[in-house]
Amino acid sequence: MIKIAVMGYGTIGSGVVEVLATNKDSIAKRAGDEIEVKYVLDLRDFPGDPIEDKVVHDYQTIVNDPEVSVVVETMGGVEPAYTFVKAMLEAGKHVTTSNKALVADKGAELIALAKAKNVNFLFEASVGGGIPIIRPLNSCLTADEIEEITGILNGTTNYMMTKMSNEGLEFEDVLKDAQEKGYAEKDPSADIEGYDACRKIAILTSLVCGQQVDFNDIHTEGITKISATDIKYAKQMGRVIKLLASSKKTENGYSAMVAPFLLSPEHPLYNVNDVFNAIFVHGNVLGDAMFYGSGAGKLPTASAVVADIVDIAKHLNRNILIEWSSKKLELVDYKKAENVFFVRTTADKAKIESIFGNVEFVEVEGITGEIGFVTTSMKEETFATKAAELGNVLSVIRVGK
Amino acid sequence: MIKIAVMGYGTIGSGVVEVLATNKDSIAKRAGDEIEVKYVLDLRDFPGDPIEDKVVHDYQTIVNDPEVSVVVETMGGVEPAYTFVKAMLEAGKHVTTSNKALVADKGAELIALAKAKNVNFLFEASVGGGIPIIRPLNSCLTADEIEEITGILNGTTNYMMTKMSNEGLEFEDVLKDAQEKGYAEKDPSADIEGYDACRKIAILTSLVCGQQVDFNDIHTEGITKISATDIKYAKQMGRVIKLLASSKKTENGYSAMVAPFLLSPEHPLYNVNDVFNAIFVHGNVLGDAMFYGSGAGKLPTASAVVADIVDIAKHLNRNILIEWSSKKLELVDYKKAENVFFVRTTADKAKIESIFGNVEFVEVEGITGEIGFVTTSMKEETFATKAAELGNVLSVIRVGK
Repeated sequence: MIKIAVMGYGTIGSGVVEVLATNKDSIAKRAGDEIEVKYVLDLRDFPGDPIEDKVVHDYQTIVNDPEVSVVVETMGGVEPAYTFVKAMLEAGKHVTTSNKALVADKGAELIALAKAKNVNFLFEASVGGGIPIIRPLNSCLTADEIEEITGILNGTTNYMMTKMSNEGLEFEDVLKDAQEKGYAEKDPSADIEGYDACRKIAILTSLVCGQQVDFNDIHTEGITKISATDIKYAKQMGRVIKLLASSKKTENGYSAMVAPFLLSPEHPLYNVNDVFNAIFVHGNVLGDAMFYGSGAGKLPTASAVVADIVDIAKHLNRNILIEWSSKKLELVDYKKAENVFFVRTTADKAKIESIFGNVEFVEVEGITGEIGFVTTSMKEETFATKAAELGNVLSVIRVGK
Repeated sequence: MIKIAVMGYGTIGSGVVEVLATNKDSIAKRAGDEIEVKYVLDLRDFPGDPIEDKVVHDYQTIVNDPEVSVVVETMGGVEPAYTFVKAMLEAGKHVTTSNKALVADKGAELIALAKAKNVNFLFEASVGGGIPIIRPLNSCLTADEIEEITGILNGTTNYMMTKMSNEGLEFEDVLKDAQEKGYAEKDPSADIEGYDACRKIAILTSLVCGQQVDFNDIHTEGITKISATDIKYAKQMGRVIKLLASSKKTENGYSAMVAPFLLSPEHPLYNVNDVFNAIFVHGNVLGDAMFYGSGAGKLPTASAVVADIVDIAKHLNRNILIEWSSKKLELVDYKKAENVFFVRTTADKAKIESIFGNVEFVEVEGITGEIGFVTTSMKEETFATKAAELGNVLSVIRVGK
């Protein structure tokens, strides 16, 4: 019998308890032992809930119980999760977390601490919800140098972009709808400003390069400036707009960015709609691969947490090697990155061509007084200079492959 | 230093040697030790090749060398691969193979033998080429009951179906093209009759249910009957035709089938084109997930083999648990499976409706003297009876979601 504690009985924490009950037998078979929830740590009580008698309010109860060997952290946020998780690892307990804020900020330190204590700190659910991506990067794609990871890593914004695209709605209207459906929070900034996706691509990049990526260094643009008019131009080009979080290994080092991109139907992420997430990976020998699935939601995310528990059960006395040192990775300045840009402007064709040279114009029936164009590939800083020279820019969206 | 032997220096075997050289440093870091190829077993010699001096012609040389701890089998076919692999495992050597024929036929036995010898028998490359799917099923999706696996598992036929769809060509013409490009063999029956996909879905089903699935029990139809006219009807319906290999957990047990299906744009496999493969998985808590990538080819497949070598290097003294017993799984008779059918016939509407009841007719401009229709969902055996009653059936293709 492996006894575990769940810290945080919100959506994901209660999902973990539910998944452990639903698939009890098959999980026990794969883990090699039964998994039993001994404690649920929460500020609240849950009268009438099956875990009612397991609720504790002081994390020290768990720290001090030698029977508990695995702790699940599903509270979210850096503190007090960090203090609690650190104490659990120091007490020789394995930890799995779904908390991307914690992993992005303290990943290297907690991985090193787990290694020193010969336990495991796993975080499959912190990126891509139920999609296996952390374990595949860490233990499947081990023959490759990963040269690119590009993901649709935020279900809320993908739902919104899909709805804007399908129904021609404006940003504010789909945001309201997403909030009503419970996909977006009252304060939606973590999603719509790209902060959530930014933390996730920081985690993936850290895993790929084996060093600590500071998410503050990643240039991040959200979807708040995308309008129904932009969508019309996208349709005219046969493309869709997706919020992508991307990191690439270049000659000069790793570059990373979060921003909306126009994707063509040939792009593997073109068809990833609604709340689904997907992660595209390019390896130097593997070539292109993609992992797709439910990027959020109670049970899919809990599925990933429970898979971590099973992995821990199979490695109770062994640290699973995760290459992610505390040495900081200096990202290439995003201004040096090359991109293709779609621009909407009220400037005239002659001026556009005099500044940008050879461009591809895009005109949409019924839209007057402005024009769209697609640039050739150029450095971000070059584009910024040219765009400032052009003036009268209504919107700018990068163009993906 | 971990010394390995490669048995079979064809496309994949030479790819393994190439990948080990290309990513030597990162592979050594992840494996925790350097990997050195000590022997290459082949009937041929390779004068001028870097491995020239490593070529041996007798597998006993490898069996009897205690320095070799890991053996790569990339010969293909059941014999002599089976004899060689068995001897290697019995000598206490780990084995990784890309050979789906061997794994489908002898998987349970070789897994049990590896376990008894406390070594590993891994086979990531046997399904889906470079796409991680065996390891994800075995060590990532461990919290789930897998209720469905549906894959595009054969790159050759997917290339052909994509080309037929894009260019309106007939089967014979795209087959010739695929042969010229080296995608299809001179004797293409393993691909176009669905035998290759059948072995692969047998392997995946065995892993999911933990028992031995006999690939001979899986109802298998290839793509040889698909015509340019069928493609025109598919386009009219907004669908594409894909060769799917599928297994589902039903109330009465597992059912499995290989056959062409008409897919709508909403299906996760709709956009999987050319030689790419993808595997759709539905878990009872995860929901939908998909794994996509290069399903064949020298380097992608070698990438999967080398990932097995790294996994073995991390488990030199430990058997990685794979649930796949020799107990035979009795599949549900495919005649009892429910499907929706698209039919082309020269029969008239009145007769069609009198036999099939409520159907959806499909007519294509310029095609006369026949009509297409889509049935409601019904058992395979019910459909067969009704189709026989109808007569004048020109083609039948199942309709996917």
